[in-house]
Amino acid sequence: MLPGRFRNHFYTQPLQKQENNVNKNELLALLQPDIEQINETMLSEISQCGNARLQQILEYALFNGGKRIRPVLTVLAARLCAFTRMPAGLAEEDELKPPVNLYRLAAIFEFLHGASLLHDDVLDNAGRRRGKPSANSVWDNTQVILAGDFLHARALTMAGTVGDHHTLSLIGMATAGMIQAEFLQMQAVEERNLSEENYFAVLRGKTGCLISAACEVGAYFAQSGDEHQTALRSYGDALGLAFQVVDDLLDYQGDPGKTGKAVGNDFVEGKMTLPLIHALQNSNQQDFDYIMGLLGENAALRAAKISEVHGFIEQYGGFTYARQGAEALVEAAIEALSVFPDCQSRNILAGLANYVLTRQK
Amino acid sequence: MLPGRFRNHFYTQPLQKQENNVNKNELLALLQPDIEQINETMLSEISQCGNARLQQILEYALFNGGKRIRPVLTVLAARLCAFTRMPAGLAEEDELKPPVNLYRLAAIFEFLHGASLLHDDVLDNAGRRRGKPSANSVWDNTQVILAGDFLHARALTMAGTVGDHHTLSLIGMATAGMIQAEFLQMQAVEERNLSEENYFAVLRGKTGCLISAACEVGAYFAQSGDEHQTALRSYGDALGLAFQVVDDLLDYQGDPGKTGKAVGNDFVEGKMTLPLIHALQNSNQQDFDYIMGLLGENAALRAAKISEVHGFIEQYGGFTYARQGAEALVEAAIEALSVFPDCQSRNILAGLANYVLTRQK
Repeated sequence: MLPGRFRNHFYTQPLQKQENNVNKNELLALLQPDIEQINETMLSEISQCGNARLQQILEYALFNGGKRIRPVLTVLAARLCAFTRMPAGLAEEDELKPPVNLYRLAAIFEFLHGASLLHDDVLDNAGRRRGKPSANSVWDNTQVILAGDFLHARALTMAGTVGDHHTLSLIGMATAGMIQAEFLQMQAVEERNLSEENYFAVLRGKTGCLISAACEVGAYFAQSGDEHQTALRSYGDALGLAFQVVDDLLDYQGDPGKTGKAVGNDFVEGKMTLPLIHALQNSNQQDFDYIMGLLGENAALRAAKISEVHGFIEQYGGFTYARQGAEALVEAAIEALSVFPDCQSRNILAGLANYVLTRQK
Repeated sequence: MLPGRFRNHFYTQPLQKQENNVNKNELLALLQPDIEQINETMLSEISQCGNARLQQILEYALFNGGKRIRPVLTVLAARLCAFTRMPAGLAEEDELKPPVNLYRLAAIFEFLHGASLLHDDVLDNAGRRRGKPSANSVWDNTQVILAGDFLHARALTMAGTVGDHHTLSLIGMATAGMIQAEFLQMQAVEERNLSEENYFAVLRGKTGCLISAACEVGAYFAQSGDEHQTALRSYGDALGLAFQVVDDLLDYQGDPGKTGKAVGNDFVEGKMTLPLIHALQNSNQQDFDYIMGLLGENAALRAAKISEVHGFIEQYGGFTYARQGAEALVEAAIEALSVFPDCQSRNILAGLANYVLTRQK
């Protein structure tokens, strides 16, 4: 039996865990032509930034092994909607190549993501990003914050000039949502009182709303109707949440050699994620008080108690609950695609959702 | 005789220093109703930011004694253009009150200015802003950077939704220009090689382009033709440059009790501004080498030599040159308004330009 919260939130069908039939390499090969177009578009935009140093920082930060998941979603969503409206008798590959402006719209989402990573790394004083020295290890903080500001401004300007009022509103709201979520998360850490509802509100803001906007903007660009825009927004929302729940599981259960992060890093930082929240909700008073006490201690003491915390979460089913939640979200994402005909773009989107459950970093 | 650079750059008429007939209090009284509308609009926008803490930071940072010069320029520019196109026989006061959307467009410029101050203060680790503790003295850096990001995103979203494609392009370009100028300035400091041309390029980016965009957007909103949009952009450009040249003069010549900054602060930070640049261009080799040598020393040593540097600039006419430059720019700003009929809005804009020369902080 799956947790009621997920069942109620995302669909009403009984759940069955899907066979995991994703071949990561095959997916990547299918996405490669779009990724190349996205990269070219980004490079071309950056080359117009008007300052050599700024261009250098932007290229360093944006061409750093990113998977381009957000812009790829925009392109796939647009292609899926365009195919859905094609006259019968044509095959998917008969469709015209996506216009240049679709790749420019797609690039917006990588720019916004990149801007938030640049600012995060300065504020966290992070030394590394994706296995390389972070931009703020190479250039000074002022230049890196300004580079983030530039990406931010460029992205929003493109949203309203390559796109239109509605595109800009969607992207502006997603950007505001990311910032609101950061505040919500900081307050949750301060108050040591994160409900499951708050947890999902933070996830939705930090990741979900940009990913769902990336999908919705693609559908809107393809001039699809409300039903298809809503379906792709729902897909993106569930995908973004699933991605983050898995991220939070990997924080406790991942292989540090693969994730590049120490086990239990979230707990050390005082962040309460789904496995811990669930365990706390279900623990006896004594265990509850003990763990809440640790959250009031300093980070070094928390780091020393990680294996105890791991045992506590395990004992009260927190990992199982979060894993089932991620699975339910992935199924909800795939279910949202059911309004579209069976075709390659839909299969790729479903494959990306399934991939979330298997990723190890 | 005025320096050729100013004469060639900004107008071809012979210059006469204008009588300074500005009454600051009278100007402020005339602007007060617009300032109140601008403040109300800003408060209303901020109240929709979606997070209580974020709202608190934004109110603190934006309602901190700012003169609202940028949004006032948008409103005045729109009113001047609207009056210019009014049927003959109507008086200026017969004109309808500016619509709400004009104040929303105007507020964008205060938001962008506020965002850049928030980021600057974090990066400079500034403790005070306008005589009060800076936002980053009250909240942590992360929250203040995020508040700046929020203002930035909100401003650009408003530009494209309250305004249109063209409005957003203008404001997006001004924002990019501000960031490019910051890079140009940092590189100039690193290279200790700032030409007068570079100096003006930095000023134009850091202040001029936002102020000229504020004026141009007002004219565009009032549906004026190219001639009037260009005139107001030129006015804003010259006004912004004049403002900054005076700022750079006040850095050496101002009363620290009024400016709130130590005398010679720019030199201590290694910034080469117009008085110094002109003196260096006109000094003998020995004096040139001595001053350039100081720029290669540490800040403490430069601070100890401020009165010597002051004497050097005086000796080679740097202060006179910069003062004359500011006067020429103010006259160019006023001259740009000559395409408009004589009316109160034009007089206020001219008064604001003259005020730049008399300000002491």
